[in-house]
Amino acid sequence: MIKAGVIGATGYAGSELIRLLSGHPEAEVSWIGSRSREGEPFHRLYGNMYQVEEISFSNDDLSKALDSCDVLFTATPQGYAASIVNGDLLKKVKLIDLSADFRIKDVSVYEKWYGIEHKAPGFLGEAVYGLCELARDRIGSARIIANPGCYTTCSILSCYPLVKEGIIDPDTLIIDAKSGTSGAGRGAKEANLFCEVNENIKAYGVATHRHTPEIEEQLSYAAGREITVSFTPHLVPMNRGILVTAYASLRKKSDGTVPDTRELLGIYEKYYGKERFIRILPEGVCPETRWVEGSNFTDIGIRADERTGRAVIMGALDNLVKGAAGQAVQNMNLLFGLPESTGLEAAPLFP
Amino acid sequence: MIKAGVIGATGYAGSELIRLLSGHPEAEVSWIGSRSREGEPFHRLYGNMYQVEEISFSNDDLSKALDSCDVLFTATPQGYAASIVNGDLLKKVKLIDLSADFRIKDVSVYEKWYGIEHKAPGFLGEAVYGLCELARDRIGSARIIANPGCYTTCSILSCYPLVKEGIIDPDTLIIDAKSGTSGAGRGAKEANLFCEVNENIKAYGVATHRHTPEIEEQLSYAAGREITVSFTPHLVPMNRGILVTAYASLRKKSDGTVPDTRELLGIYEKYYGKERFIRILPEGVCPETRWVEGSNFTDIGIRADERTGRAVIMGALDNLVKGAAGQAVQNMNLLFGLPESTGLEAAPLFP
Amino acid sequence: MIKAGVIGATGYAGSELIRLLSGHPEAEVSWIGSRSREGEPFHRLYGNMYQVEEISFSNDDLSKALDSCDVLFTATPQGYAASIVNGDLLKKVKLIDLSADFRIKDVSVYEKWYGIEHKAPGFLGEAVYGLCELARDRIGSARIIANPGCYTTCSILSCYPLVKEGIIDPDTLIIDAKSGTSGAGRGAKEANLFCEVNENIKAYGVATHRHTPEIEEQLSYAAGREITVSFTPHLVPMNRGILVTAYASLRKKSDGTVPDTRELLGIYEKYYGKERFIRILPEGVCPETRWVEGSNFTDIGIRADERTGRAVIMGALDNLVKGAAGQAVQNMNLLFGLPESTGLEAAPLFP
Amino acid sequence: MIKAGVIGATGYAGSELIRLLSGHPEAEVSWIGSRSREGEPFHRLYGNMYQVEEISFSNDDLSKALDSCDVLFTATPQGYAASIVNGDLLKKVKLIDLSADFRIKDVSVYEKWYGIEHKAPGFLGEAVYGLCELARDRIGSARIIANPGCYTTCSILSCYPLVKEGIIDPDTLIIDAKSGTSGAGRGAKEANLFCEVNENIKAYGVATHRHTPEIEEQLSYAAGREITVSFTPHLVPMNRGILVTAYASLRKKSDGTVPDTRELLGIYEKYYGKERFIRILPEGVCPETRWVEGSNFTDIGIRADERTGRAVIMGALDNLVKGAAGQAVQNMNLLFGLPESTGLEAAPLFP
Repeated sequence: MIKAGVIGATGYAGSELIRLLSGHPEAEVSWIGSRSREGEPFHRLYGNMYQVEEISFSNDDLSKALDSCDVLFTATPQGYAASIVNGDLLKKVKLIDLSADFRIKDVSVYEKWYGIEHKAPGFLGEAVYGLCELARDRIGSARIIANPGCYTTCSILSCYPLVKEGIIDPDTLIIDAKSGTSGAGRGAKEANLFCEVNENIKAYGVATHRHTPEIEEQLSYAAGREITVSFTPHLVPMNRGILVTAYASLRKKSDGTVPDTRELLGIYEKYYGKERFIRILPEGVCPETRWVEGSNFTDIGIRADERTGRAVIMGALDNLVKGAAGQAVQNMNLLFGLPESTGLEAAPLFP
Repeated sequence: MIKAGVIGATGYAGSELIRLLSGHPEAEVSWIGSRSREGEPFHRLYGNMYQVEEISFSNDDLSKALDSCDVLFTATPQGYAASIVNGDLLKKVKLIDLSADFRIKDVSVYEKWYGIEHKAPGFLGEAVYGLCELARDRIGSARIIANPGCYTTCSILSCYPLVKEGIIDPDTLIIDAKSGTSGAGRGAKEANLFCEVNENIKAYGVATHRHTPEIEEQLSYAAGREITVSFTPHLVPMNRGILVTAYASLRKKSDGTVPDTRELLGIYEKYYGKERFIRILPEGVCPETRWVEGSNFTDIGIRADERTGRAVIMGALDNLVKGAAGQAVQNMNLLFGLPESTGLEAAPLFP
Repeated sequence: MIKAGVIGATGYAGSELIRLLSGHPEAEVSWIGSRSREGEPFHRLYGNMYQVEEISFSNDDLSKALDSCDVLFTATPQGYAASIVNGDLLKKVKLIDLSADFRIKDVSVYEKWYGIEHKAPGFLGEAVYGLCELARDRIGSARIIANPGCYTTCSILSCYPLVKEGIIDPDTLIIDAKSGTSGAGRGAKEANLFCEVNENIKAYGVATHRHTPEIEEQLSYAAGREITVSFTPHLVPMNRGILVTAYASLRKKSDGTVPDTRELLGIYEKYYGKERFIRILPEGVCPETRWVEGSNFTDIGIRADERTGRAVIMGALDNLVKGAAGQAVQNMNLLFGLPESTGLEAAPLFP
Repeated sequence: MIKAGVIGATGYAGSELIRLLSGHPEAEVSWIGSRSREGEPFHRLYGNMYQVEEISFSNDDLSKALDSCDVLFTATPQGYAASIVNGDLLKKVKLIDLSADFRIKDVSVYEKWYGIEHKAPGFLGEAVYGLCELARDRIGSARIIANPGCYTTCSILSCYPLVKEGIIDPDTLIIDAKSGTSGAGRGAKEANLFCEVNENIKAYGVATHRHTPEIEEQLSYAAGREITVSFTPHLVPMNRGILVTAYASLRKKSDGTVPDTRELLGIYEKYYGKERFIRILPEGVCPETRWVEGSNFTDIGIRADERTGRAVIMGALDNLVKGAAGQAVQNMNLLFGLPESTGLEAAPLFP
């Protein structure tokens, strides 16, 4: 059994990790840390886990934790993971960080978008960006996994094949994303009260959202050059789910025409056809967040619009699973040589 | 592997059965019938099961189905199961009926509340009312399981111990129940449109809801005499979940006082303390539907109100799982000698 | 024009007051107080009022306010209104208090249920409990109006005629109430976050909710003796609306039978038939919160259940309008001799 | 009093018309037609209007209706209004059509996108596209008003000033729109059931939605040449509201830079600064559908993104008010010489 420690289990992503690890056949939650919750059973915060997971919070003294864990998950605010990482820690555990601390290679970009100093720039080089389907080969031997963000996972997986193959002009890429409210976390903020979110949709962080540089960095690798994208997140009155609708101009083929939907689907098939957790939808079918809720799937649909010469790329995932805790477990599976889907087989829950 | 056939997989309860059976380690869906959907893959109706369950609908010709199944689930409108049952069918398969056809022993009560003639009254005698926690002993050898209704399961499990022990006066029992909208089925009715249900709560079927006689019959067995209850269902703007709030006068003890909350909890502990799927909540904690969503749990909380001399009994379950498909699988497990919780271990999903 | 001052306009009930007063043909908002928001335009907190109501918050120094107001509304936490009331204040303004400070005549009952000392018990005697339909005669000449609570208004209006007429046994009265989330206020609490409320229903404050003594006091007046009721509130995933489902045993008539639904409706017709803001629904129709949203209506439906000998009484209102700000404006109209429905004519908004 | 007839009052847009006309000080509903509902009171379909609007449905025989009406609203399926229009009708009443029949000048475009033959192409020339803020001058003397669609009103009002002024390159315009579910109508379709819409977001009609040519035609007038736009609608789990997020490349100014947000806001101020029903939001504020619910407002926010050289334009309105019935009443006011905002003054309802 893999012994897993979790810091940040009080939040939605952290609690989803507990749920997944608790049902994982080859792993167990061996330690959860929280200074303010010390001694409190986890299920008192998350009643769904009553009589399912009996662990209680320890204080957040890492030294003891590290001795009892094989892997440490940090579902913590920006800056925390970078503040605790060091050689000793990495001798004892694999680190899977669900925050942004190790996602961006260029420390100045990180510091600009997040507005805080990076405490461990020396470890950025070795950290592997854990988008499993694209970085599978490098994950197994890593010590630090930078678990991608929710918007990011959905955006990159959706657009990657067309950028990589040069089918679209990446300078025209516009990503309009919609998220359920669990992405905003469990912090008690007026803006996230039921009555403020219900019966409402809004854009936020327009032109300034922190997931932008993460998307740009990964898609720039695919494009082979630096690209800039428009990214706009929206808050939707639902608990879980991210939907990405992306637009980009299709490059003309040598015969002067643009590819049709079928050709685009062929490219996705080539890249993702064998992926367990990516479902390419048939022509004419659009992804919907309800079809992935509670699962580790990313559903992708595509449409070539000959009228405008653009591709409309759509992706859907559960922000707490493939967009956070599920992908973290998928990374753990890769790190420990388990089949990638271990503990992640649950079908989506509908309705 | 148990081979399971399902009629009515186009509905929410039926589709939940497919989801549970599809993830069940000892069972598989071997046949699903629907005249109008013949040849269509199940996942075209329920996109969550895309690339998870590949079965397609057969026409609803039972003769072929029976040869390929060990158990037949009917998640069908009232009257259907009674119309197909016969000795031949029961030689080939166990029948687990999710409709009301075999729930009520007195055929005249059935015909009065449901307004249709019962086509197979001769089989009522042997059918076992499949409320697993209360009828476990008789389920194993049955040929026909009458799988209880969603409101009913929640109401009976919540009130049973106090009625059985004579702690409350059953003539004062009032059950105020609240249900998510999936209980209303997938039929296209104006009353169940999003805009009609959202931002609304209403009572319906006041004094006339068909689950009433089912609750009364089962609680009458517990009381040792015929009792009559007030039962009022309400429609709540959420997908899943039933919450029951029940009220009844506490009988005075020999010392003239009424039992306190702690004593009441002790009685529940005695009845359900070892049940895997019933969680008795600590004093002061009220059940909430979010804590059971997607799981087979029933959560029960209780409060003795010394001011009014009444007990307030609260129960919560997922109407599609413990209130329908999950309990049906639990019954299947009992029928086939499997551990009762096989395939039903998934923790509730929150948020 | 009536000049109205409001303390507590930062909350949902207070902001609804601003909305109603802002559209009132005979009143205007002349002052809103908040120490922490001084100088800030109201519409920055409530974007719906942008370019509709341009008033900004003053600090909460009452002395200036009183000189510029004819009426002062306090939509404030318990204890505040009692702390500011005095003879000088009442010489300058009428006080309409939306908190509980002046609702309960017996100061010891108030202090027991609210757990705070009452700062102005000397004014309890003259305060009029402002349930307009029942206290219209006494409101006009009052100096202090105790504006009733949301649960309370709905519960009392729904049950009053049957209690007053002795049709039901008041000792058997059980009130099961369901509320939208705006009733919980705009305070940033984890329990009221979207993801905690959505897809959930729960009871809370079982046997201990503070609206209980208010209901009991008013219904005791109707019964002519002290009565005790069971009252259980529930939180429903919707913004606005309260639904009350009440149960009570019908008293037998001299011929040994109980009244039927038609007779009960006749009694409501007698009490409320001419009321502008109470709509008695036809036989067989149940109230729904969607039909009153945004309006000052209370919808009442009733059913005599001959099987159980009980009446099921149902009432629905908008907790922010008839349950708070609308009734406060109705009281203001009565205090200033305006037609009672002035500024309250808006039809309910659906969907 | 203007006497108004309505065909299609059974639907959400039609019922909103009844609500608005019913509260309009200078108009009254004099006739509503429906063959299948003849004799039934309107409030039986829309309980909110119980004791507010007492009119009943007549059969849909127009001849009688025309004699008793000054204006006829058709909130009907495509093709109906074109099938009834003729010179006689227009002698008796003004026609305000909420369907698409008279919105598109080029009959072949209409027939291509709607797939039906246009029955009255001879009246297309005189019909005025009733986007009040842009066509005010021509509306007053028209006989036929083509009341714009909901997505269309929001998209055009949001983008018009930047297209008209040549600030953006219209060939790069991408409109990503999100709508509440009332836009889908009251027809009983499985796709619009509560459980299908709740906890879900999806795109639909990608590259094929019928509002596209309407947007293109109007923005082409503004651009002075034919333009083609990408338009993608999404279904959001809320009752009311449309949010448009539009993207377009900013043209460089003579100094090589692109305009900043402040400059863009200045252009909106120039076009809409005096409009009663368009609210231009301050820099940094994004429109939210909750702030316009129940009102005739369109809220517009804008952001120049210097990183990408694009403008992000956001607009929000209530699809049933400014997107349908409210704009229809606004057109009626213009047609009959009333102040444009008569009967449309209600502030948005929040929460």
